[in-house]
Amino acid sequence: MTTVQIREVGPRDGFQNEPETIPTADKIRLINGLGRAGFSRIEVASFVRPDVIPQLADGVEVLHGIDVPDSVSLMVLVPNSRGLDNALVQREYFHEVALFVSASETHNKKNVNRTVEESMADNDVLVKRVVAEDLTCAAVIATSFGCPYEGKVEMSRVLDLAERFAEHGATELGFGDTTGMCNPKYANEFFAAAIERLPGVEVTAHFHNTRGQGLANAYAALEAGCRSFESSFGELGGCPVPKGSTGNIATEDLVSMFHEMDVQTGVDLDVVIGSAREAQQVLGRKLTSHSIVSGPINWTPGVDVVGH
Amino acid sequence: MTTVQIREVGPRDGFQNEPETIPTADKIRLINGLGRAGFSRIEVASFVRPDVIPQLADGVEVLHGIDVPDSVSLMVLVPNSRGLDNALVQREYFHEVALFVSASETHNKKNVNRTVEESMADNDVLVKRVVAEDLTCAAVIATSFGCPYEGKVEMSRVLDLAERFAEHGATELGFGDTTGMCNPKYANEFFAAAIERLPGVEVTAHFHNTRGQGLANAYAALEAGCRSFESSFGELGGCPVPKGSTGNIATEDLVSMFHEMDVQTGVDLDVVIGSAREAQQVLGRKLTSHSIVSGPINWTPGVDVVGH
Repeated sequence: MTTVQIREVGPRDGFQNEPETIPTADKIRLINGLGRAGFSRIEVASFVRPDVIPQLADGVEVLHGIDVPDSVSLMVLVPNSRGLDNALVQREYFHEVALFVSASETHNKKNVNRTVEESMADNDVLVKRVVAEDLTCAAVIATSFGCPYEGKVEMSRVLDLAERFAEHGATELGFGDTTGMCNPKYANEFFAAAIERLPGVEVTAHFHNTRGQGLANAYAALEAGCRSFESSFGELGGCPVPKGSTGNIATEDLVSMFHEMDVQTGVDLDVVIGSAREAQQVLGRKLTSHSIVSGPINWTPGVDVVGH
Repeated sequence: MTTVQIREVGPRDGFQNEPETIPTADKIRLINGLGRAGFSRIEVASFVRPDVIPQLADGVEVLHGIDVPDSVSLMVLVPNSRGLDNALVQREYFHEVALFVSASETHNKKNVNRTVEESMADNDVLVKRVVAEDLTCAAVIATSFGCPYEGKVEMSRVLDLAERFAEHGATELGFGDTTGMCNPKYANEFFAAAIERLPGVEVTAHFHNTRGQGLANAYAALEAGCRSFESSFGELGGCPVPKGSTGNIATEDLVSMFHEMDVQTGVDLDVVIGSAREAQQVLGRKLTSHSIVSGPINWTPGVDVVGH
């Protein structure tokens, strides 16, 4: 029996991209619903400057307000030492810290206005601080499969950065397909190489659905041995590049695919679809996931599937 | 170098599901555009009763009116002997005939009001007539990966039907995921088995994107050795079950995935995306393919991908 971990990133990576401010109470209600869906991991907040990402300015209120099962490991994103200082004030409200860097110089510069080496020098220190706090440190490498500014990104460059994070104490390495440039053949090769290169480290796939290949990439990574994935309920968020594109893969579509293949996720698909539909109401627009329309697959003979 | 064949089915399978009548001149213009895109195969018409599918009642005018390169093999769908009689009057205007049956009794009954055996008894005769006319006979088995009424469909049942078609002279066997119930693990197993069971027969995959798994299924079938695919430009058509779901996989998304993996299709992706955008204008609504928004992947450093 194959089992995978899915981290629900909608409350951070998803909400972050919403142009209209989502009321804190709605965020809390949606996260509580996701907590009941059976996720073992949810990314819930970001300690970035509120003037940079106003949508996530209520991160502390969200952390204080949510009520999820103890089994849920909550993650916060931290961009720098100031962010970690602020996060650690709330030390008892979360379990995992995500640090990040872009594999491509141009994207890193545009994203955090530093060179990759400057970001990594900081990250070397941050990882150790996170580990010293007895928190799980998950490092994320953006543009792992291609950069919209630089084109191809060498696998060796990405894996060198990953190894450096691991050497300093990161126990999870996430590889982000920031603008959806991965394809399943490359996903398969990449994750086989990453798993071999990073023994003892959890290797996580974060795909986007920019050209509709998100689930194909997830399947290819699974075939390569990847057992940890990130996705966003309702297909919220991600990086809509080119403009108007979809970003993150939808959690409900990923879970549906896994369950249909008898891959266990621990997640209740009906509950996730319910959360996605609730998000649709909160945001007042139609979301783009497929299962939100189709519902889960129904193998029961004679049942009118149109009724879903 | 891996090469695949893609049959563009939008002009038949796609248009058929449009509620508003598409003017014949628009159909002809769109098909001519697809002909210029480099497809070696296009499904262009159906010889069904015009009162059953009024949208395709102008099939003969379309066949007479289109102007595509000689290299394009044109397919027509034929449901029964009456349909074949009518098709053969236009013998010089097409090259391939598609016959079909559903693997599940209930779907076949609801679709053509006959038992599977009644349909197959007819098909035994029809295949021979098609072959005797020196036309290529491609048989299509609907609900090959699951039936909305009966649930699971046994692989052996599907492959038995396929073998029977092949024994009577069909040189291509298409397996249709009529309501999008396939998953990549099963697609991989199924196409490996089908290719082994049907030596000398071209095995074609026809997937839907109902739960977002269409391209994952295509990748899994490719990995199993499948080299022939069907898809629909603009993600037009297919069977929207459950109601509101998407149907056929989008040609432009499939082509984009293949090209990104260095799998050759012979198709010009930019031209297909142009055709899909033209269809969007003709139909007056936003189509659901991904590449129609994102454009093809752009590996050129420094190019502003948002401009696509």
